[in-house]
Amino acid sequence: MFNDFKLVGDRPVYIQLKDYLKEMIIKGHLLEHQKLPSTRELSKLLSVSRNTVLNAYADLEQDGIIYAVKGKGNFIGKVVTVKTTSVELHWRERLNKVTLLADELDLMKQEDNHWEKGMISFNSVAPEEKLFDMENFKRAFLTRMSLEGDIVLNYGYAKGYKPLIEYLLHYMERKGVDISNKDILITNGFTEGLDILLSSFAKKSVRVICENPTHHAALKLFRLHGFDIHGIDMRDDGIDIHQVEKSLAAKDFDFAYLIPSYHNPTGIVTSSEKRAEIISLFSKYQIPIVEDGFNEELRYSGSHLAPLITFIGAGNNVIYISSFSKILFPGLRVGWILADRELIHCLESVKRARTIHTSTLDQAVLYQYLQDGYFEKYLKKARSVYKKKYELARQACKQYIPFKRMTGDGGLHLFIELEQEINARTLLEKCYQRGVVFYPGDVFYSNGEGSNTFRLGFSRLKEEDIVHGIKIIGDTLKNEMGS
Amino acid sequence: MFNDFKLVGDRPVYIQLKDYLKEMIIKGHLLEHQKLPSTRELSKLLSVSRNTVLNAYADLEQDGIIYAVKGKGNFIGKVVTVKTTSVELHWRERLNKVTLLADELDLMKQEDNHWEKGMISFNSVAPEEKLFDMENFKRAFLTRMSLEGDIVLNYGYAKGYKPLIEYLLHYMERKGVDISNKDILITNGFTEGLDILLSSFAKKSVRVICENPTHHAALKLFRLHGFDIHGIDMRDDGIDIHQVEKSLAAKDFDFAYLIPSYHNPTGIVTSSEKRAEIISLFSKYQIPIVEDGFNEELRYSGSHLAPLITFIGAGNNVIYISSFSKILFPGLRVGWILADRELIHCLESVKRARTIHTSTLDQAVLYQYLQDGYFEKYLKKARSVYKKKYELARQACKQYIPFKRMTGDGGLHLFIELEQEINARTLLEKCYQRGVVFYPGDVFYSNGEGSNTFRLGFSRLKEEDIVHGIKIIGDTLKNEMGS
Repeated sequence: MFNDFKLVGDRPVYIQLKDYLKEMIIKGHLLEHQKLPSTRELSKLLSVSRNTVLNAYADLEQDGIIYAVKGKGNFIGKVVTVKTTSVELHWRERLNKVTLLADELDLMKQEDNHWEKGMISFNSVAPEEKLFDMENFKRAFLTRMSLEGDIVLNYGYAKGYKPLIEYLLHYMERKGVDISNKDILITNGFTEGLDILLSSFAKKSVRVICENPTHHAALKLFRLHGFDIHGIDMRDDGIDIHQVEKSLAAKDFDFAYLIPSYHNPTGIVTSSEKRAEIISLFSKYQIPIVEDGFNEELRYSGSHLAPLITFIGAGNNVIYISSFSKILFPGLRVGWILADRELIHCLESVKRARTIHTSTLDQAVLYQYLQDGYFEKYLKKARSVYKKKYELARQACKQYIPFKRMTGDGGLHLFIELEQEINARTLLEKCYQRGVVFYPGDVFYSNGEGSNTFRLGFSRLKEEDIVHGIKIIGDTLKNEMGS
Repeated sequence: MFNDFKLVGDRPVYIQLKDYLKEMIIKGHLLEHQKLPSTRELSKLLSVSRNTVLNAYADLEQDGIIYAVKGKGNFIGKVVTVKTTSVELHWRERLNKVTLLADELDLMKQEDNHWEKGMISFNSVAPEEKLFDMENFKRAFLTRMSLEGDIVLNYGYAKGYKPLIEYLLHYMERKGVDISNKDILITNGFTEGLDILLSSFAKKSVRVICENPTHHAALKLFRLHGFDIHGIDMRDDGIDIHQVEKSLAAKDFDFAYLIPSYHNPTGIVTSSEKRAEIISLFSKYQIPIVEDGFNEELRYSGSHLAPLITFIGAGNNVIYISSFSKILFPGLRVGWILADRELIHCLESVKRARTIHTSTLDQAVLYQYLQDGYFEKYLKKARSVYKKKYELARQACKQYIPFKRMTGDGGLHLFIELEQEINARTLLEKCYQRGVVFYPGDVFYSNGEGSNTFRLGFSRLKEEDIVHGIKIIGDTLKNEMGS
């Protein structure tokens, strides 16, 4: 008895002892009213201090697991663990179609075998961890905690942490947004923002118009919410506006979803002129636009580009959803919806019903980090690192990959279109044998196309691996795919 | 020009200057190709260092807002802000019924006028902020950051932060749960866990059976998900099991929702014997139970009580949802679902589709805090503080309030039932005049009853305010309500 007690790690010893004894009691290895060893005996037996045993016993007594009898010692208390016949439900039969579809469309589950240590992976468009500005992040945390730790740790508001909302409103105002009739709802990242919105739209035509290809997480959410997806081809300066015009004239849509900057997956940045055209066209048809602010902060160069929402002035037909976490700290789940004030007022209640509010800790530390100007400094560094990687990747693709079309105006990824007859998944299998993986492009298409496309995320790769990996893809294409 | 530039707070000066200039340019106060003052002139004009101006100009240039001409100076770049005719959509008409219902059922929106500084508020069942263990929380943060800050800040897994999942599985195992066929999904607090589950159930009978009264946030979610709510009366040792039996024999239910410990709002702790009966009855009818682990950690005294899920052994018909955040740090949004492994596997995809994952920062710091044994220490302190408040509140209610029934076996609140003819909302209005507020009980009832009930949350009140506030309620009842 007691000889399988082992100490692990830094966890206080008396707690480890308490946990150990509790487990033995709950599992029935010690019986009701059985006497426990005296504190002196147990301390000797386990080579721990007597104080440790005293503390563990005291805690167990408080938990009602053991009881003390004065002058006689400690005894095991009553632990009810009557186990009834165990029932096995068939859970899949009790789940609805949407949930089973979410399981089926879950790319992460399909990817499990796709990466091994040492491989060159172009899958990710997450930020490079080495760039993380840990020191200032810690500083921001400590500052905020010392200013109002009690507020940070207690319940907050569904709408979000007020200083952060204020900050973001002004931040967006400086981008040119007329905020007079608008408000912000803080969400758990971009994804929750989009999901809350999709849950809230009245489904009239049950149809969405968007770029094709587009962000696969958005496509998945459209499908889960039952929307028909009407995809429009991408030109080099953004969505094909003539196709849009024809579609709007022919059919009704509940909303549009657009990614004007560093469009995922093509990396295309929609031109200023086209932005104005888009707004004017959708306004004419009174179709609201959901604008995905994806990585627009990452612009390396070129002239200033305003988000679509700046073009509507005091209108309310654009809903802007964004997040800094994609380039800053994805582990912090903070995004926001900037939209018409009354719309935000309603969405706030959906947010409250679903998750009460977004982590105040995440919001407060992010706020302090922004407020102290660390974000600007970080962006400057990040831009220069990513720009170099971008240029390397672009150059290497030109040199090694016999593509039909390559797009990507910066950001963290490039998009490659091969000749129509080449299957990117077959190519991926062959490259996988050589230790290189990338993201097949078909998952970004709303209509089953794109089998000849793939996305190259370069943000987290070393410079030499970018070039080396792209060369392997190109060689594989030329030597094994007859390209 | 430039004379309205004002410095505020600690934000770096060059960023404030950059923001200021950017806003002027975006708003059109400075025109395209207009020359900016030289760095020397502007630094003199605004009384900032020349370096500050140099940095601000450099940033503006990188943003594409201004451009430099060698030997000539800096000029305003091209800023497209064509505003089209502004479109005003009627957003409420474009939202669905569920969202409008969420707005309507949002108690926080109705409460806005209900609290003023200096009032004694029995509304909250949130933890007392003064108890927050800020120092160890900071320590846990710094420890975790130094161990794996890069992991904490980058994307994590939808299922949750692995060390935390492992910790919680063993934590629940020590409570007696057979974890061999079970798994954990981390969620943004209890509420998201329940919401994900409700979104996932196949609706067959579209009916839920639960205690009446019960947690109003759960009631709201049942309503938003369209479930019919079948409430069962509460006895002093838990739900009325005979009523349950009759209901199960008469009707189908998709699931049950139960709060066995410190039931919200009645504060009743379901006895061990009744827990066994509940499991055996629901197992017989193959109706899954959603167990709300609400505040079960807060048990002040009495014998050990195992969660319902321990009684099913290797069965899979109980889904346990809980969170430490309600007693520890509500600002951290971390909860978990412990259930059948295959069910968790499917729910994981719903979680990923909706919010990618819960804040890794929240999860990692909570993990470290638990692992280092601070939670146990905190609980000990919290229990003794709350126990004292509980006993005071209970005593004061007995002394001052002519109730018909009072329930509450500990925890953070008591529940009062008055004579049938007394309206608690009328009482609330009168007490409000005297600076005391509490939570009307009708919001916890599934069937419009409870007009003669209210909940008293005492966790955040000072001891003297507890007694004083309860005396005011009692006096008001006796003097103004003829009780």
